[in-house]
This record gives sequence, structure tokens and C-alpha cells, in this order.
Amino acid sequence: MSEQTEARDTTVSAVSELDGKLARLKGWLYNKRSSGKILFMIIRDGTGVIQCVATKNEMGEELFRRLDGLHQESSLIVEGLVHKDHRAPGGYEIQVKECRVVSEAWPDYPITLKEHGPEFLLDQRHLWIRTPTQRAILAVRAEVMRSIREFLDNDGFVEVSAPILTPSACEGTSTLFSTPYFGEKAYLSQSGQLYNEATIMALGKVYCFGPTFRAEKSKTRRHLTEFWMVEPEAAFMTFEELLDLEERMVTFVVRRVIDRCSKELEQVGRDPKDLERIVPPFPRMTYDDAVKLLQENGIDIQWGDDFGSPHETFLASQSDKPVFVTGYPTKVKAFYMEPDPERPEIVLASDLLAPEGYGEIIGGSQRIHDYDLLVQRIKEHNLPMEAYDWYLDLRKFGTVPHSGFGLGIERFVAWMCHLDHLREASPFPRMITRMRP
Amino acid sequence: MSEQTEARDTTVSAVSELDGKLARLKGWLYNKRSSGKILFMIIRDGTGVIQCVATKNEMGEELFRRLDGLHQESSLIVEGLVHKDHRAPGGYEIQVKECRVVSEAWPDYPITLKEHGPEFLLDQRHLWIRTPTQRAILAVRAEVMRSIREFLDNDGFVEVSAPILTPSACEGTSTLFSTPYFGEKAYLSQSGQLYNEATIMALGKVYCFGPTFRAEKSKTRRHLTEFWMVEPEAAFMTFEELLDLEERMVTFVVRRVIDRCSKELEQVGRDPKDLERIVPPFPRMTYDDAVKLLQENGIDIQWGDDFGSPHETFLASQSDKPVFVTGYPTKVKAFYMEPDPERPEIVLASDLLAPEGYGEIIGGSQRIHDYDLLVQRIKEHNLPMEAYDWYLDLRKFGTVPHSGFGLGIERFVAWMCHLDHLREASPFPRMITRMRP
Repeated sequence: MSEQTEARDTTVSAVSELDGKLARLKGWLYNKRSSGKILFMIIRDGTGVIQCVATKNEMGEELFRRLDGLHQESSLIVEGLVHKDHRAPGGYEIQVKECRVVSEAWPDYPITLKEHGPEFLLDQRHLWIRTPTQRAILAVRAEVMRSIREFLDNDGFVEVSAPILTPSACEGTSTLFSTPYFGEKAYLSQSGQLYNEATIMALGKVYCFGPTFRAEKSKTRRHLTEFWMVEPEAAFMTFEELLDLEERMVTFVVRRVIDRCSKELEQVGRDPKDLERIVPPFPRMTYDDAVKLLQENGIDIQWGDDFGSPHETFLASQSDKPVFVTGYPTKVKAFYMEPDPERPEIVLASDLLAPEGYGEIIGGSQRIHDYDLLVQRIKEHNLPMEAYDWYLDLRKFGTVPHSGFGLGIERFVAWMCHLDHLREASPFPRMITRMRP
Repeated sequence: MSEQTEARDTTVSAVSELDGKLARLKGWLYNKRSSGKILFMIIRDGTGVIQCVATKNEMGEELFRRLDGLHQESSLIVEGLVHKDHRAPGGYEIQVKECRVVSEAWPDYPITLKEHGPEFLLDQRHLWIRTPTQRAILAVRAEVMRSIREFLDNDGFVEVSAPILTPSACEGTSTLFSTPYFGEKAYLSQSGQLYNEATIMALGKVYCFGPTFRAEKSKTRRHLTEFWMVEPEAAFMTFEELLDLEERMVTFVVRRVIDRCSKELEQVGRDPKDLERIVPPFPRMTYDDAVKLLQENGIDIQWGDDFGSPHETFLASQSDKPVFVTGYPTKVKAFYMEPDPERPEIVLASDLLAPEGYGEIIGGSQRIHDYDLLVQRIKEHNLPMEAYDWYLDLRKFGTVPHSGFGLGIERFVAWMCHLDHLREASPFPRMITRMRP
């Protein structure tokens, strides 16, 4: 069997490089069918799935019978000849020369090829992620995270991690998780923004990128209690430049997903053509106009109200691109947002609403840089001044106009993959009713 | 003043591209000296510092007096002619043509150019990060994180975030932070490894990269309660391949730091020559030999003891490269580590000890893949079997030999920057006595 010694290690994603050659593949049995003499094994290896054809002739009686009796998820090392076959899923097939069973899976694998309910699948999340669609979503998630960093790094932003354990409940404690902390109480961060506003003064342009936490009792398909967020912030950046940055970043990331995740998009059933449309300029709509449009269409809203999901969904449905809504009422937005110089009743804030009902994927604003105005706002919002002493220092020493935004990763991935629910965009989703496995 | 209209936006790090041309720079006054007619302003912009020279002649009487009276950290927009000057720090200087004061800093900036104590500086961490050495450390930290990802992405690893909120206290609750979680209790993760062991079965090679938490009461220069860790894990990876991966990754990241952070290393006083030595092969030493060596040198240790800081420091001092120590006693290591097939009293585990007293920067091992052995270990360690039901599933369905490691970012950065204490390697360090600002 001298030919096996030449076999080269490969993966399903790279198998085309070994067309006509001997390859070695390590993976798991996903599905199989047998004629009694020929066994078609669908093997997955974490990078994709490929059909491997084993004959009784080549394998010998004993091994063939063993392979034929394997349960789904059994692990294997397969060596064989790669060849193009347009009938095979993925376009390539392996003619098995040798096969080693690494482990035989137990017979009762919980996730079969039939339909399962969502709660059952979430209970089995540690296994569910193996199915091709879930694997594809996780691969898209990794590409989204990677290309966001690539874009920001190339744009001169420096990654500076914001702390998770924070001392004060800046905007009220009702939606915060908390832990005893050596005689004190620490809260799990909802956002790194305030810390970013310190680090831009050291590094100019920064981003933090990590998990954030909301103990909100919202049991909707748009909420997780733990989710990842990237938050870029830059000194001297104006509101106009902020919108431009958001538009460029979203465009870049969507392009990367189209280019690098074509198989994954196919797997999840997302037509790349839907994403090809996501190019600048994104439509911009003022809050004022948005309210009028909603009212004209019989949707209940008054000027001064914040938008909920139905409003966002309607507004985003006006375009097949993401839509900027700008100039929200000051009183519905956070205390740190810079008022519009010509209309102090609105702020230089914008949400970016994804099409197809995915709603807000980005929230951003210019921040107040004036010391006196910030002090006034903290008072108006009845926030504890002493918790903001260090934050106010940033306005005493070298304050500059600055802006930033936050993009929620799971929402973005859900949009890319056209998911019904955020939970599939997280490897191990955390919701009010779930923190297992 | 038609010439100003030609000024191009730049940063200190890119100023050499505009040699002989008009540039516009946005930044903060770091230091200044004046002759009464010429004002030398050291301006920092987040990417570096540069000397800007303003004359009374060019500025006019009023502006010159205002600039001359500015306090440290005042923010400025400077336009002027870039020219090479070997006497200037950084090699370039700007002859100021126009200067706009964006904000005048208050007079009492807490961090002056004199020495301050560490507690004072940590209280002022939001401002301390602006000083050139702290900025340089944060820039090195960003490069370390970036190059780790670059290495792993290029090696076929997929980033899959592990959850922070976890249900069970797998290895005891004494060093865990916890939060009420909708009627239950959630613990903040110390490691994503167990989740990685699930995701490798879906994606082959993965890494998680995020904050981890330890409520340890260790008040040492080597401990933070919140720190970032990267944890790669791969299906089918053997112990030998693991050590090779660690060696390649550390070498790659050190090389990137030397190549991309030369100015930062200079700023922190780290001689790049010390890092040039970090090339394969790294010395390898068995635990057995390490114990003998320690004993021969009069350091108190018995076979079977775990190493502490003094032991690690001594062992690492045997080389100017990182040192692998392999084959630790089974009973001092975690329950999931694969025993050496020839000597079950030791495990296929290794720590990588950095030179110069920085101690363990990586801990890694092959993991137990056999179901029965894992069950036996969970019992031996008196761990709650029901908490591991999903983890045991991974050994029922498609188990394969697999390995992984964890690298602590702040320890690695402290080593790169030759820091005395981990706290400077974190943007906002969290310790037993500190979670502010």
C-alpha cells in the first residue's frame, strides 16, 4: 500500500488543490447511504462537507461492514483519491483507499436529520452547532468580526479593551447584572463608550470589541442578555464624518462576507444579490420626516416618542439598503449626546436601520464636549455626579468634539444570514430563560 | 493666507510623507518652552509626539501670547510646514503657519512631568494613559492582539466567542464572580476551553478571545481580576503539535511587535535585541528534570508539588528564550488533561515560561477524549457530574484526540514591554482593591 504514504493532509475547503491526488481528511460522518457494495459517506471536517465513496472491494469485508454500521458523528481519518465530480455536493469527491475509525459515536445522537423544536435544539446547542447551517452562521460571524477589525485597523483605529467590571450604574441599575466585588458591588458593562472617550485622548482613534450585558426582561427575538459589540470612537470626529465612517464600515464588511462566505451564504439560504445592493450612499431620513411618514401610514407615533420595533421595521422597509435616521429628540436619547447647534431639542445622533425588518444595527452620536453642558445634562438626568468625576475630567483637560458608535455583532450576523432570531447568531446564546449549556 | 487651504490632514506617525509640505495636525499640548519670541510646542496626537515651532512674527502678538499661556493638555489644530530636523525628537518638526485653540485645558492637570506614586496614577488612569509610555504600552497591546488573530486566522482557526455567563461552577466557586440571573445564579467565566471543545467539533480549529475573570485574593504584580485571554483549540491536534503551534505563534507575535512597534519599544525602554532572540526552538524541560534542577539549586520543592512564582522564575532564568516545562504530575493539574500513555502519573500538559521572571504566559494540554476516563476523573475530583452532561456528550459523539492552550494577554504585553506589574498592561486594570475609574 505504498500509495497511501504519499497522501497529503487537507481540509474540505482546500480539497480542490489536490484534484487527482491522494489526500488525507480528518472528520466526522454526517450522513451515509449504502448499496451493500458501495458506501457513500458524507463527511464534514469543520470547513465543509464532502462525499467519500468506499467500496467493499477496496476496504475489505470486515472494514466495509464496520463503516457501513457506523452511527452519525463517528470520527474518521480517510485517505483517498480526490476527483472532480459535478454530481457531488461541493463538486469534489474522494475515492476512499484507506479509512481509520477514530471513534464510534454512540447510537442515540440527539440531532437527527428530521425537524426539531427550537428549545430542544438550544438544549443541544453544543451539538446543534455541528449541523451545516449552524456551522455556516458561526463562520459568517467570525468573518464579520474579522473584517470589522480589518477595516478599523486599516483606518488607523487602535483596539483598546474597555473594562467589563465597572463601579457605578451610570444609567440606572435595573438592566445591569452585578457581582459582589471584595466588599463592594461591581456591574457588568453595557457599553465601553465612556472608557473609549478617555482612550481617544491617548490614542486618537480607538475601538473596543467585546461582550456586553443587558439584564433586560425583553423576551424578544431581537434581544440577548449577553452579546458582542464593537464600539469605535474618534477624537475630532464630527457627526457627518461619523455617518460616513459607519457607511464605509458596513459596506466593507458586507463586501467581505459576500466575497469570503459565498458557500456559507448559500448554506443559510441568503441570496448574495440581496447583499450586493448594500453600497453607498445609504438613504438618510430625519426623525421629523420619519415621524411624518409613520403617521401618514397610520402607525401610531407622536413627535418626541422613541421608536420601537414596528416603527423601525416600517422605516427600514422603505429601502433595500440600511437607512440612517438622524436627529432624534434630545429627551429620548442618552445624556451625553451633543445637541444640534441649530435645534437643541434634537441631538446629533443617528441609528442605522437594517432592511428586511432587522432594525437598529448601529447607534451612534456626536458626544457633548463642553464641560458646563455635560454637568447640566447629568443634573437633568438625575445621575450621581460623583460617579462621573473622571468622565468630567475629560472635558476639563483637552476636550475636543468627538463621536462614536456601537454595532451589535449578533444583529449584524442575523441580518447577513437572514435569521429569524438572534439566538442562532451567538455560539452559546444567553437569554432570560437560558444560560445553558 | 491662500497657502493654508492646501494643508493636508495628517498624523504624527505619517508626517514624514508630507516632508516640505503643508500639513494639518489635530492634537494636544504635551509640553512647551518659549523664548518670548519663539514657542516650541510638543504636541501629541495619539500616534506620537512632534515639535511644533510658532513664532510671534507668524502668529501675531495676541495669538502668540495665548499659545504661550496654554496649560498642558489644551487641544489644538495646527497647520504648518513639515521639515526634517535631526535635532527634533522623532526627526521632524512643524513650522507653524496657523494655529487654532480648540479648548484651553484647566490649569490643574493632575499628572505633571514629575514622579507620581502608583496608587495616585491608577486613580488618574483615565488621564495617565495619555503619557507617552502608557500610550506606547496600549499600542503594543493592540498589536499583540492583532497579530495573534492574524496568526490564527492564517492558520485556519475560526474565532468563536465563548460565553461569559455560565451556569455551573465547574472547578469550585471560591475564585468566581457571580451575578443573580433571573432567579438563578450565573458565574463569570474563567476560561472558554470547555466551550471550545464543543466548537472544534463543528469547525475543526477554533479560538475564543475575550475577557476572563478570577476572584482570587492574590494581591501580586502577576494577577488581575479581569484579564484578556486567547484560547486556541483544535480537533485531532496532538500534544507535540500543540507545542509546535505555541512556539510558532509566540515567535510570530514577537516578530510583529519588533517590526511594527519599534518606536513604542523604544519609548518603554525595551531593547528589541532582547526580543530578537525569541526564535525556535524554545528549550524544553520535563517537570522531572525541572524538580531536580530546583533541588540542586537549593530551592524547596518535592516531586508532585506545583510550581509557584519563585520556581517559575528560576526555571525561566535558565534561558533567554521562553522555556516549555512538560509532563506535570496528574494530581496538580486539571481533571480534563490527557495522561501520558506511558506514565499515567503525569499529564500531557505544558506551561510556557517567559524569560526575565515573567513566568507562565501559556498553559496548554492535550485533553482527555475517552468517555470512561473522563467520567472517572470527574468522580475523582468530586465534581458535580450533572454539570458536565453536555461536556460528556462531546465524548459520546465523535470524540477525537484534541489539544489547546490559553495565553494571557496582559502577561504577554508586560513581558514585551518589560513592565514591573501587570496593571500597566491593561487599559483600566481591575484588582482586589481597585475597580475605578
